[in-house]
Amino acid sequence: MVATAISPLAPAAFPDLPAIAGVKLHTATLGIRYKGRPDVLMAELEPGTQVAGVFTTSTTASAAVRWGREALKGGTARAFFVNAGNSVAFTGKAGEKFVADKVEAVSKALGCAKTEIFTASTGVIGEPTTANRITDALGDLLANEAGWLDAAKAIMTTDTFPKGASATATINGKTVTIAGIAKGSGMIEPNMATMLSFVFTDAALPHNVLQAILADCNNRSFNAITVDSDTSTSDTLLVAATGKAGNDAISDVNDPELAAFKAAFEDVLRDLAHQIVRDGEGASKFITVKVTGAVNEKEAKTAAKAIANSPLVKTAIAGEDANWGRIVMAVGKCGVTADPNKLSVAIGGITLAKNGERVADYDEGPVEAHIKGQYIDIDADLGFGDGAATVWTCDLTHGYISINADYRS
Amino acid sequence: MVATAISPLAPAAFPDLPAIAGVKLHTATLGIRYKGRPDVLMAELEPGTQVAGVFTTSTTASAAVRWGREALKGGTARAFFVNAGNSVAFTGKAGEKFVADKVEAVSKALGCAKTEIFTASTGVIGEPTTANRITDALGDLLANEAGWLDAAKAIMTTDTFPKGASATATINGKTVTIAGIAKGSGMIEPNMATMLSFVFTDAALPHNVLQAILADCNNRSFNAITVDSDTSTSDTLLVAATGKAGNDAISDVNDPELAAFKAAFEDVLRDLAHQIVRDGEGASKFITVKVTGAVNEKEAKTAAKAIANSPLVKTAIAGEDANWGRIVMAVGKCGVTADPNKLSVAIGGITLAKNGERVADYDEGPVEAHIKGQYIDIDADLGFGDGAATVWTCDLTHGYISINADYRS
Repeated sequence: MVATAISPLAPAAFPDLPAIAGVKLHTATLGIRYKGRPDVLMAELEPGTQVAGVFTTSTTASAAVRWGREALKGGTARAFFVNAGNSVAFTGKAGEKFVADKVEAVSKALGCAKTEIFTASTGVIGEPTTANRITDALGDLLANEAGWLDAAKAIMTTDTFPKGASATATINGKTVTIAGIAKGSGMIEPNMATMLSFVFTDAALPHNVLQAILADCNNRSFNAITVDSDTSTSDTLLVAATGKAGNDAISDVNDPELAAFKAAFEDVLRDLAHQIVRDGEGASKFITVKVTGAVNEKEAKTAAKAIANSPLVKTAIAGEDANWGRIVMAVGKCGVTADPNKLSVAIGGITLAKNGERVADYDEGPVEAHIKGQYIDIDADLGFGDGAATVWTCDLTHGYISINADYRS
Repeated sequence: MVATAISPLAPAAFPDLPAIAGVKLHTATLGIRYKGRPDVLMAELEPGTQVAGVFTTSTTASAAVRWGREALKGGTARAFFVNAGNSVAFTGKAGEKFVADKVEAVSKALGCAKTEIFTASTGVIGEPTTANRITDALGDLLANEAGWLDAAKAIMTTDTFPKGASATATINGKTVTIAGIAKGSGMIEPNMATMLSFVFTDAALPHNVLQAILADCNNRSFNAITVDSDTSTSDTLLVAATGKAGNDAISDVNDPELAAFKAAFEDVLRDLAHQIVRDGEGASKFITVKVTGAVNEKEAKTAAKAIANSPLVKTAIAGEDANWGRIVMAVGKCGVTADPNKLSVAIGGITLAKNGERVADYDEGPVEAHIKGQYIDIDADLGFGDGAATVWTCDLTHGYISINADYRS
């Protein structure tokens, strides 16, 4: 085990998150792996709460994810039930029973359909276990109402800080509130990181509208971050809409009345996603990669991801080296339409390379100052079309190696 | 600059390579960047030498690569001309002139067509320079006949050892000889690594047959290695066949008489490719990843590359941790047909996970012993079809970070 200090990119404090009508948080301290801190979270949702979710695209997804994909078809949720310390991923029938037993116990306790219970587990993989300890504690869990900070802590594994965000918007004149928590990217156990996020709103929105908004905003938030290009088997993002704000229901996702909500919702998702990058393993710098001039948005994102995932780009930033040649390399390797004679690259807003060659007389002072800071901006313009995308990542440092290699299982 | 010791995975000595009739090696010590060692190589080839080549797939390829792609259409070569210290990549018109001036001068000196001169450059990118120093030294270069070791050294940048390999085979009863050199994967300058390899044979083989054999063998050698998933703008592999062995010419690439040559040629390419992995930045372990049971060979290679490029797998091996969960994760993320309940994973030949769960009673002793060694075998069987592929890589260590981040440009 490696002792991990709080990330230098952590926010100053956990934000003050508003209560969401129709959502009750419960936590328990069961010592599944971590001692002296909550490690089980249940977000209890009032009947009729609409749900939306996106899950890992992994073909080796965990039993919890496979259950969630099915349950989502029902469109409503009564609980998000999460444990930290054992992901029970890749444990075959034991993993399926672990999920099934929890779903059974929680649905009985709440008197609802099993498909209204969503579960997520994060922690060690490949360690079969039973759900007994968790189901036995259900009564105590329900009796213990918790706040957002405890909820955010209960889902942490080796995260170095709890993650939360909120926003408000209006729909047809009614104020609606959004609050969410997330975990991810710290990892000192010999297992894989898991990204989990749970977002709650009192807005009245049907399942299908909520799902469409989620899928869209997710593309520009959680699906636009990367720490090390590795994809967890358990990634889960669930959204609950309780309807308690009392706004008129909106059935058309393109209704202009939803614009403010969509923007606020995307703000919350992006904020949470950024907090995961800020807690990226060994991160010392937060990097924003913006690609413009691609033939379309998809190619822009491919190029931005190639830059953000390149070990050579990430180590250059760690070394405070404005190495634009590695950015050119990353664009070149990813297969998108590009031409060295049309490509330009800027770091910290200063163009370093243009039309296939170095800008001979660029001002090194501001670039040097920028690259020594904690927030690094990389801009690449491919010079072809209107496709643009932004991706966020962190640098690759000795800390990453220490966390992932400097121990033995 | 970081002082780099010779890789712990380096072979004991540079091999004793045979001369190839029709090939004369020349080197010069011009001090372009490196002092006190040869830094320019010319392999002079007798008239009629057939050529084959493969180049980086980068869309931001260097001027030398773009020239080579065109020149290859002619099918014959009189010289491979290489310099180390400046890749002249991404230098716009200056780079194009650098290549054109060298090609012009060398073709004049040899009295041949320009399209028979192939060039490659490796080193710092984005630093415009002229070819004057090189073309001025052409007389001295031609007067200095060199051996394989000097030739292999002349193309090194921050490689920690020179790389060479050879083999013999028979075609229609005639003995033919193959010898080659390569460089790649060491890098302490703020530029990108470049993979270069030049292979020579006295076999009589027409350009198109040579090209077909090269493309096929390249798939299972250079295109099956990865150090850090980053693709250079200058990667070049050129093959010259002088025809001096006097074997009957063979015009059909599927002629069974070519079987021994193909096998020997692939041996040389694989040996050189392995030496590049052994000199991978910061490498402490050589990893062989074999995927079987994929729906086809392409998916097998995609999965093998995903395992070999996963920072989490590579750091686990560096940490001597038989972390099969990260291998499952890598298979899951790459999009090939897979199912956790059909997947099995072995390390060092011992199956650790099978049918979606850990093998409860596997013998930890031999796995522990294997993972502490320098040569690590990872086998993943997807349980679907006959697709198989092998990929070679190295681990990801503090050495990689030190080489690529612990300096300032």
